[in-house]
Amino acid sequence: MKKAIPDTSPAAPFAYAGLDRVIHEHARLSVLTCLVAHAHGLTFNDLKRLCALTDGNLSRHLQVLEDAALITVLKGTERNRSLTLCRITATGRARYTEYLTVLERVIADAAHAVKSDAAAPTDSAPEKI
Amino acid sequence: MKKAIPDTSPAAPFAYAGLDRVIHEHARLSVLTCLVAHAHGLTFNDLKRLCALTDGNLSRHLQVLEDAALITVLKGTERNRSLTLCRITATGRARYTEYLTVLERVIADAAHAVKSDAAAPTDSAPEKI
Repeated sequence: MKKAIPDTSPAAPFAYAGLDRVIHEHARLSVLTCLVAHAHGLTFNDLKRLCALTDGNLSRHLQVLEDAALITVLKGTERNRSLTLCRITATGRARYTEYLTVLERVIADAAHAVKSDAAAPTDSAPEKI
Repeated sequence: MKKAIPDTSPAAPFAYAGLDRVIHEHARLSVLTCLVAHAHGLTFNDLKRLCALTDGNLSRHLQVLEDAALITVLKGTERNRSLTLCRITATGRARYTEYLTVLERVIADAAHAVKSDAAAPTDSAPEKI
């Protein structure tokens, strides 16, 4: 975990402060992307299948997302069977969109760097060590 | 942590199996992106500043990246001062590039979903609950 160091400074262009930790975690990123893609909501079982998660993992991550108000989890019954429906909230959609903007910047930085083999060394990088 | 469920199946399009956990962690993603952008290597202090990390955090994440053979950490002296130089390896660059490909897919999926308000509900999503 990163400590509370300001990382929005121009001196720290690779800190990516907006890379929201609640969203960035692999399983939660899967779940949220899936829910953004299914605006009407998805059942627990659909999410489990689409994201290849176990019951326990999905439950745990849904709780984190619900606690952060990024999703709602409705528990009810349908035709006498219990059913859990998960939906992204307006807050969730907004936070996810902000997260995407930062992710796009990571990709732009990286794609630029990968293409450029002639990256200049920094002042303090020695020629040999 | 996700258990060993196959997530490369077409049934799990949101599992993003290639989202390498060693690389995906926020601080390590910062460090690697920074090292990809500085092909000649960076000193410990430069990395710390550019990624807005503490000494302890950077040390810990460099160890993880070095253990995974994604970077090399050279420790030496220059003009009687100790100096640590970090560089991405060929393996690191290849793994990072693969990771980027998956990240681009996440963004493509998400961007598509965010634009499409008319996402259809799945078969099992109830009309009301």
